[in-house]
Amino acid sequence: MTQGTYVEDEFQRDTTYIEDRVTTDGAGEHEWPAEPGRYRLVVARACPWANRAIIVRRLLGLEDAISMGLCGPTHDSDSWTFDLDPDGLDPVLGIPRLKDAYEKRFPGYPRGITVPALVDIASGRVVTNDFAPMTLDFSTQWREHHRAGAPDLYPEPLREEMDVVMRRVYTEVNNGVYRCGFAGTQAAYEDAYERLFTALDWLEERLADRRYLMGETITEADVRLFTTLARFDAVYHGHFKCNRSKLTEMPVLWAYARDLFQTPGFGDTTDVVQIKSHYYEVHRDINPTGVVPAGPDLTGWGTPHGREALGGRPFGDGTPPGPPAPAERVPTAHNPLVGADGLVRR
Amino acid sequence: MTQGTYVEDEFQRDTTYIEDRVTTDGAGEHEWPAEPGRYRLVVARACPWANRAIIVRRLLGLEDAISMGLCGPTHDSDSWTFDLDPDGLDPVLGIPRLKDAYEKRFPGYPRGITVPALVDIASGRVVTNDFAPMTLDFSTQWREHHRAGAPDLYPEPLREEMDVVMRRVYTEVNNGVYRCGFAGTQAAYEDAYERLFTALDWLEERLADRRYLMGETITEADVRLFTTLARFDAVYHGHFKCNRSKLTEMPVLWAYARDLFQTPGFGDTTDVVQIKSHYYEVHRDINPTGVVPAGPDLTGWGTPHGREALGGRPFGDGTPPGPPAPAERVPTAHNPLVGADGLVRR
Repeated sequence: MTQGTYVEDEFQRDTTYIEDRVTTDGAGEHEWPAEPGRYRLVVARACPWANRAIIVRRLLGLEDAISMGLCGPTHDSDSWTFDLDPDGLDPVLGIPRLKDAYEKRFPGYPRGITVPALVDIASGRVVTNDFAPMTLDFSTQWREHHRAGAPDLYPEPLREEMDVVMRRVYTEVNNGVYRCGFAGTQAAYEDAYERLFTALDWLEERLADRRYLMGETITEADVRLFTTLARFDAVYHGHFKCNRSKLTEMPVLWAYARDLFQTPGFGDTTDVVQIKSHYYEVHRDINPTGVVPAGPDLTGWGTPHGREALGGRPFGDGTPPGPPAPAERVPTAHNPLVGADGLVRR
Repeated sequence: MTQGTYVEDEFQRDTTYIEDRVTTDGAGEHEWPAEPGRYRLVVARACPWANRAIIVRRLLGLEDAISMGLCGPTHDSDSWTFDLDPDGLDPVLGIPRLKDAYEKRFPGYPRGITVPALVDIASGRVVTNDFAPMTLDFSTQWREHHRAGAPDLYPEPLREEMDVVMRRVYTEVNNGVYRCGFAGTQAAYEDAYERLFTALDWLEERLADRRYLMGETITEADVRLFTTLARFDAVYHGHFKCNRSKLTEMPVLWAYARDLFQTPGFGDTTDVVQIKSHYYEVHRDINPTGVVPAGPDLTGWGTPHGREALGGRPFGDGTPPGPPAPAERVPTAHNPLVGADGLVRR
């Protein structure tokens, strides 16, 4: 659910979230302890902010420590729902709507019901839906529960530069596409379009001689950029009018995106059917018919990208994650490049 | 103005037109004589069916014989208007709305007010709006008024095969994009999409070793295909969800389209600003905000296409038309490849 307001016809995302954190010892005010089995991560594969959490959880191997509930791609006017589950109830939380977990925490919760959300299973209450710190905390606060070989997605020596890069990616790209799509006037749209493609040109240049955004290895910054690129041609290009060019027409970014897509944890968490369904069926204000485009052809995502020539060590001193658990696999029918083991075929 | 109905949620174009014809001697029933200066061709550059008439008139050099009135790209719910003209009146017909010329012919005219329309200047009455025979008649019935060097766009020996090709291009491509965009249900859309791209694959194959649709030289069949291709990435790809791929991703059709675009008569009659404005501002039922996309980048239309390698004689025994008259030039601001002389820069 995209919550926001308009200021001079420019879409402004509502960034007031439930700001509690799950930290290693949970000792501070508004902090909860990082206990395996205590929380459920509620996501929708369609949503780019939730997709970020899905990828980070998988790269770090937190599946056994933090279980995952999957909402369907569409939702009614006030909540994401567990319509994919038998009987329409999340099997762990036992609720039909994510809103129920928000209401349990704050009766009459007045803001958007968003994914990703971390829910305290015992009490059924949302702990936080603040997606930006959530995944950084997965990296830094859950370290003792990471899988063997988990990469360091938020390396200390890079953080200062990383925060700057991630800030620009967030305001100009992740949120920039929404600013284009939800612009209230032609002028607001054109301003948003200009900002978006200026940032994509910057990224095209930055990534020309760097394998990943921060250099040699994959970091959280790449995860954040990837979830927007994975939706670009399927949704943002047409539905949000981000159409100076397709991703496939930006050679560096397209090769970079394919490199990540073909890396365990990225393409294998991308459900293109749910992504298209979500945007085109939910946003009736910009797509009144609800018709979902049949294109684009996605087979290009599996083609050689040539980025190995830039060197780099994708997982640094770590290793790639293995295949996802059967219950968490994206079906081939929803992503033609996913094989029977749930990994992207290369 | 796109007039049509829905049969099982499939958009069906209303193909009942005013079927009078302008013929060389005007001797038959419902026939009018081909007299220079007698008729005004009313068009809108935005409309593909009108663009066809603009191109044929220019290729044949009929500008002095048949004057041209230009409606603006948008229109209200019942008529194209002369809003581009000073005082909003067509300088020859003296009317503000094309509907006035339809009403003069048939008071209470119940169908869509469409361009192109040929209007008898003296009486102010529409003679015909039947766009398919209209341009063939420009070729065959106005022969003595063609410029020196005019090509034969409807050559006798090719007509049988040409009619079959043009029929398929019409139902599957020219009208096929509308069938996608105006589909009333997901199923109707998917059927339309499948038909459209099946036809584009056929064209991709047909044009692989033929410079033009009928072989060596440009014919009316090429004009008819061109006007849809010229709008494909700018409008049909996103607005009508014809998004298996962009035209730029179909290598043969893209080279073919650029070849024509760079040929006098084609790109120099293409007003991309008016095209985008028309579709995105008029069809509020599928684009409620009326926001017009800033993309796509059009500079690719000017790049080398390599089709000369297939040989061919674009104008057969004829010659290309010269630059358009100043009053009929598409401004560079509306098509970045048009130079000061009104021709496409190569």
